[in-house]
Amino acid sequence: MNATLGVALIGAGSIGSVHAANLASGRIAGARLVAVADAIESAALALAGEHRIDAAYADSERALGDGAVDAVVIATPAATHGDLIRAAATAGKHIFTEKPLDISLERIDAALAVVVSSGVKLQIGFHRRFDASFLHARNSVAAGRVGEPYVMHIISRDPVWRVPPKIGGLSGLLFDTTIHDFDMARFVLGEVESLYAVGTPAVHKAGVPDTLVVNLKFQNGALGTIENGQAVFGYDQRLEVFGSLAVVTVDNQQRDTTSVIDDAGSHQPLPPTFYPERYAAAYVAELQAFIDCIRDGGEPRATGADGRAATVIGLAAQRSLDEGRPVAVNEIVA
Amino acid sequence: MNATLGVALIGAGSIGSVHAANLASGRIAGARLVAVADAIESAALALAGEHRIDAAYADSERALGDGAVDAVVIATPAATHGDLIRAAATAGKHIFTEKPLDISLERIDAALAVVVSSGVKLQIGFHRRFDASFLHARNSVAAGRVGEPYVMHIISRDPVWRVPPKIGGLSGLLFDTTIHDFDMARFVLGEVESLYAVGTPAVHKAGVPDTLVVNLKFQNGALGTIENGQAVFGYDQRLEVFGSLAVVTVDNQQRDTTSVIDDAGSHQPLPPTFYPERYAAAYVAELQAFIDCIRDGGEPRATGADGRAATVIGLAAQRSLDEGRPVAVNEIVA
Amino acid sequence: MNATLGVALIGAGSIGSVHAANLASGRIAGARLVAVADAIESAALALAGEHRIDAAYADSERALGDGAVDAVVIATPAATHGDLIRAAATAGKHIFTEKPLDISLERIDAALAVVVSSGVKLQIGFHRRFDASFLHARNSVAAGRVGEPYVMHIISRDPVWRVPPKIGGLSGLLFDTTIHDFDMARFVLGEVESLYAVGTPAVHKAGVPDTLVVNLKFQNGALGTIENGQAVFGYDQRLEVFGSLAVVTVDNQQRDTTSVIDDAGSHQPLPPTFYPERYAAAYVAELQAFIDCIRDGGEPRATGADGRAATVIGLAAQRSLDEGRPVAVNEIVA
Amino acid sequence: MNATLGVALIGAGSIGSVHAANLASGRIAGARLVAVADAIESAALALAGEHRIDAAYADSERALGDGAVDAVVIATPAATHGDLIRAAATAGKHIFTEKPLDISLERIDAALAVVVSSGVKLQIGFHRRFDASFLHARNSVAAGRVGEPYVMHIISRDPVWRVPPKIGGLSGLLFDTTIHDFDMARFVLGEVESLYAVGTPAVHKAGVPDTLVVNLKFQNGALGTIENGQAVFGYDQRLEVFGSLAVVTVDNQQRDTTSVIDDAGSHQPLPPTFYPERYAAAYVAELQAFIDCIRDGGEPRATGADGRAATVIGLAAQRSLDEGRPVAVNEIVA
Repeated sequence: MNATLGVALIGAGSIGSVHAANLASGRIAGARLVAVADAIESAALALAGEHRIDAAYADSERALGDGAVDAVVIATPAATHGDLIRAAATAGKHIFTEKPLDISLERIDAALAVVVSSGVKLQIGFHRRFDASFLHARNSVAAGRVGEPYVMHIISRDPVWRVPPKIGGLSGLLFDTTIHDFDMARFVLGEVESLYAVGTPAVHKAGVPDTLVVNLKFQNGALGTIENGQAVFGYDQRLEVFGSLAVVTVDNQQRDTTSVIDDAGSHQPLPPTFYPERYAAAYVAELQAFIDCIRDGGEPRATGADGRAATVIGLAAQRSLDEGRPVAVNEIVA
Repeated sequence: MNATLGVALIGAGSIGSVHAANLASGRIAGARLVAVADAIESAALALAGEHRIDAAYADSERALGDGAVDAVVIATPAATHGDLIRAAATAGKHIFTEKPLDISLERIDAALAVVVSSGVKLQIGFHRRFDASFLHARNSVAAGRVGEPYVMHIISRDPVWRVPPKIGGLSGLLFDTTIHDFDMARFVLGEVESLYAVGTPAVHKAGVPDTLVVNLKFQNGALGTIENGQAVFGYDQRLEVFGSLAVVTVDNQQRDTTSVIDDAGSHQPLPPTFYPERYAAAYVAELQAFIDCIRDGGEPRATGADGRAATVIGLAAQRSLDEGRPVAVNEIVA
Repeated sequence: MNATLGVALIGAGSIGSVHAANLASGRIAGARLVAVADAIESAALALAGEHRIDAAYADSERALGDGAVDAVVIATPAATHGDLIRAAATAGKHIFTEKPLDISLERIDAALAVVVSSGVKLQIGFHRRFDASFLHARNSVAAGRVGEPYVMHIISRDPVWRVPPKIGGLSGLLFDTTIHDFDMARFVLGEVESLYAVGTPAVHKAGVPDTLVVNLKFQNGALGTIENGQAVFGYDQRLEVFGSLAVVTVDNQQRDTTSVIDDAGSHQPLPPTFYPERYAAAYVAELQAFIDCIRDGGEPRATGADGRAATVIGLAAQRSLDEGRPVAVNEIVA
Repeated sequence: MNATLGVALIGAGSIGSVHAANLASGRIAGARLVAVADAIESAALALAGEHRIDAAYADSERALGDGAVDAVVIATPAATHGDLIRAAATAGKHIFTEKPLDISLERIDAALAVVVSSGVKLQIGFHRRFDASFLHARNSVAAGRVGEPYVMHIISRDPVWRVPPKIGGLSGLLFDTTIHDFDMARFVLGEVESLYAVGTPAVHKAGVPDTLVVNLKFQNGALGTIENGQAVFGYDQRLEVFGSLAVVTVDNQQRDTTSVIDDAGSHQPLPPTFYPERYAAAYVAELQAFIDCIRDGGEPRATGADGRAATVIGLAAQRSLDEGRPVAVNEIVA
C-alpha cells in the first residue's frame, strides 16, 4: 500500500468525473487519483489530462495491473459492476463502486465471494448515507427520537432529463434512481418485507415509467412510500419518518437564504439543480470514509450486503411493476 | 320557508355540537338553530338548553314534522344517514349530512332518488373543501398552476384517540377519517380508477388498522398516496400535488407565529389540537354555503354524488385491505 | 348593573365598527351592544341599524345617561378621549377606550383621577397584548426563556394608506400607530429610559414622517428599535427579543398555509391585509377581558397607567423628532 | 508575475489560517501560498509547516522581498494595515488586506496614495460581499426589486467570545465586527449621511460595549439599523431591506435541513457556529476574485475607497458612542 493511496477511476462519465475531481483536488485526505480508465480511450485521456494524470487506460485491466493503484472507483454501466468488482478484488485492489452493485444477483454473489476471500474493502456509492441531513434523520430514528416508526416517506425527484429507459432489460428508473431510495429505506428503517409499485410515463410519454410510487412494508411492521419523478424546479430530495413520539423530516435545501415579499406573496430561491450541487459534500465524505476504512480497518457504511439488498428490492419492484401486484421481497432469489 | 331558515340538528354528539354552536351564535347568516333531536333525549335536552332552544326531541321524526324546521343537519352514526336523508327529503327539508353519506350503496341510492324527486338540497359535510388552504390548493390545480398533475400526496393524522374500530362491519378508520381524504383526492384530482391499501394496528395494537397507506391511480393517469394515522403532536393535515409545472403544498398551521432559538436549536409551536380548532372557519363556511344554496338556488360544493363516490372508494379500499391486492373502483357496484 | 352588561359605543368609525360587530354578535359573553353614539348622527344611526339597536345618539352625553348602559367603548378622535373618560367615569360607566389614552397629559391626569375616585374599570385598547403570538412572546420573556434581555426589535408596518398627518399638532404616525409599539415595548421589556427617533416622508413625500425608526434604551439596560412604515404586501407585524439565553421572534401570519414551488422559486401567500384580519381574535379577547374584569373585579391587562406611559413615550419621541437628539423619557412632565 | 501567482500570508492568526488553507489547497485557481510571515516566528513556522511551505519569515519585509511572491494577504492587527499596505505597494506586490483597512485615516491615505502610484491591486476583506445570500440581496436591491429603499436592518451577532476590548484606543467591537456591517450597509444602500450609536456591556459586563445598536441615515434618504451582539445559538447573520415594492431578507442558514415535531413543538438545528463555517465559500470566492482581478485587470469588488469609507463610518460611530449624540459622517475628516 502506498503512503498516499493511489486510486484509479474506472469509467470517465458524469459521476466518475465528480469522483475524479474530488480525488485529484486533495479534498480526500490520504488518497490521490493516479489513473483513469475508460473503454472510450479519448474519454480517459481527457479526464486524466484535466487532472494532470499520466495514466489513462482504455481498459480496466491495465488499471488493475498498475502498481501505483491501491484502490479503484468503479463508475461504469451498472451491468458491468459485478465483473469489475470480481476482477479488482482478484487483483487485490480495494473497491468503491457506484450503485447499483449490479443488476444480476449471480454476478453480485460471484463478486462478493471474491471480495470476502481476498479481504479487500468494498463500499457502495450510496452517498446519501453521508449527507448531513439524511444521516442526522437516520441517527435520530436510531436513537429513538421518533419512538416506534410507523410510516416513512421518501420523495426523490430528478430534474427533467432522460433517465436510461432500460438497464439490462430492467427499468432504468428503478436501477438508476430508486435504488438510492431503496437503500435509504433500509438505512433508516431496516429490511423491507414486501412492496407494491406503480409507475407512469408521465413526463416523457415514452412508454417506460418516469414517475413512480412504491408502497413498502418493512419487517418491523412500518409502512412506507417512495415517490420518484422529475421536477421542473430542481432536485427534490426529501424524507419523513413518522412514529409514536415524533415525525422527523428532511426538507430540501435552498440555493441561498434570501426571501422576497412583494405584493404577490413571499418568494424564495429554488433547491439545488441536481446531484453535483446537492450532494457535493456527501461525495467527498463517502470517498473519505472509504479511504479511512482501508487505512483504519473499519467496515464501510455501505457494504456489499447493502448493495445486494437494494438490488433485491429493485428486482421485487420490477416484478411488481410487471405483474401489477404486491410482491414479497423473499420471492426474489438468486 | 321561514325568513330566517330554521335548522334542526339531528344527532347531538361531538360534531353535532360544533354545528349547533355555529347555528345558534348567529355566525351563519340567514339561519338559526330551532330544534335538536337525539335518540338519547337527555343529550337533546342538554344541547338545546345550552343554546336556549325549546324544541328538543327524542326522535328525528318530530324534528321533521316541525313547521319551524326548513333544513336539517344530520350528525348521527354513519349507517343511519341514508334513511334519515330519505325521510328528511320526503318531509321536504333541505339536508346537510355529516360524512360518510352512508356506508351502504343501497341506502345511498334510495336516499338520492328521493332527494332528486323532492327537489331539496343535499350537502355532504366534506368541510375541507371549505378550508382556505385546501381550497386554494385545489383552485391552483384547477387553474393549471401545477400543469399536468403527476402525483398527489395527502397526510391526514388525528391526535391519538380511539377511532371506532368498526362501522357496520367496515373499517372505522376508513369510513370515519379516510373518507375525507378520498373526497379531497377527488376534489383536487378527479376520479379514482384503482387503489391499493395497507394498514397496521401500529398505535393501539388492537387488531384493526389505525395506520394506513393507500395508493391511488386516478383516471387522468396521476398517482397518489394517502397516509392516515395518529400523531402525538396534534392534528396533521397536509396535501401536496406535484405536476409538470410546479408542486403545490398545504402545510400544517401552527398555533401561533412565535419561534424561539436557543442553544439547542430553533423551536416553534405545535399544529392545532384537532378538528374543532383546525377547521373552525371551514365548519362555518360549509354551513353558510349550504344556507346560501337553499336561498340562492345554487349547487352545493359537496353533492350527493360526491358523497356516494367517496363511499365507493371506501368500499374499494376495504376490499383491498381484506384481500391484500389492488382493487379497481369499478369492481364496487351497488 | 344589568344581567347582561349593556355597552354603548361612542364613535362609529372604522375601529368602532369592529367593536360594535363583536359586541352585537354575541361573541363577547356577558355583554351586548345597546347604544351607538356619534357626533355625526347619520353614522350613529347607520351602525345602530346594522346591528338592530334602537339607541342611536348624536352626542355622548345621552349615551352616558342611558340606564341600559353599563360600560362604554370610546372610539372617537384621540384628543377627545380624556374628557370622555372623565365624563363616563363621573356617570359611573366602565370604560374601554381606544388608544392613545389621550395626547394631553393634563387631560389624562384629570381623567385618571376621576376613574380612581369613581371606582370604574378603565382598559386601554392595546389589543396586541391579547394577540396569541405577542402574548406568548411576552410570557416567554417574563418566564426567563430568553434570559437577560439584550435587544428588542419591533417591526410594525401598515399597508399603504394616509395616516392622519397631525393629531393635535403632534405626529399622526406616532400617536396613531407607534403608540402600539411603545406599549408593546413596555409590555415585553418594561420602562423606557430614553429614545432617539428619526423619520422620513418616504412613502407619501407629504412633509410629515410616514416611515420611522425609534431607538430605545430601557431602564433595565436593554436596547431596542421600532420600525414603522407602510408596506405594499400587507400588514407587517413582527417582534424579536434577543437575550442571553435565546431569541424569541413573532413572525407574520400568512393568509393560508399553501406553498407553490415552480421553476422560478418557492412562493407563499401574503400576510393579512390589515388590523381587522390580523387581530380579529385579539379584538374579541380584549373586550371579553374587559367585561370579565367588570364582572370578576380584576385589573385590566392594559391600565390607565399603561395608557399614560405610552403617551409619555410618544411625547418624548415627538421631541426627539423635533429636536434631532436623544431624549430622556423623564424630560416629559405633565 | 509568476505563471501561478505566489501569495505570501502576513499574519498567521485565526483568519490568516483560513486564507492560508484556501491558498494552499488549490481551491483558489491560479494562485498558491508560497510564504508565511508573522512577527512570532514560531507561528509562521507552524502554519508554513502545516501547508508544506518552506518560506516562513519573522518579518514582513522578507516576504515583500521574496521574488516568488506576487501578492500578499495581510491578516495582522488592524493598526498595522496601513503601513504594511504602503510597504507592499512600494514593493510592487498586489494586496489583499483584512478589515479594517486601518483605524487611522492618515495611515490609510498615505497607503492609498502609494497603491495608486504603484498600480497594484488592493482588495479589502469584506467577504460578505461574496456570500451568495448577501450578494443576491444586494443585487436584488440594485435591480430595483424592492423599489425605493426605505429601511435597512442588519443583525450581526457573533457567538459568545471576547472581542478585543480596544483597538488603538477605539472600540474593538466597532472595528472588528461592526466594520463589516458598515461596509454591508454601503454595499447595499450607498453612502451613510449620519448615525447614532448606543452600546452596552450586556454580555461580559466588562465596561466596554459588546452589544450595540446603530441607527443610520443614508444620503438617499433611507434609514437603517445595525444590531451587534453575541448569541448563545451560533452565528446570527441577517439583513433586511424594506422598500416601496418589496422587502428582501437574508435569513440565517441552518446546519442541515432536518426538522423534528414532537409533542413539545417543532424543532430545527442551529445556525452555523461562526465565520469559518458560515462564510467558507465566501472566503474562497473573495480570494479567487482578487486573483482574477490581478490576472484580468478588473476592479476589486471591495476597493481601498470602500475600506476607507467603512473606517470613516466607524470613527463617526465611535464619536457618537463617546458623546451620546447623532454624528454626521462628514464631521470625520482626516
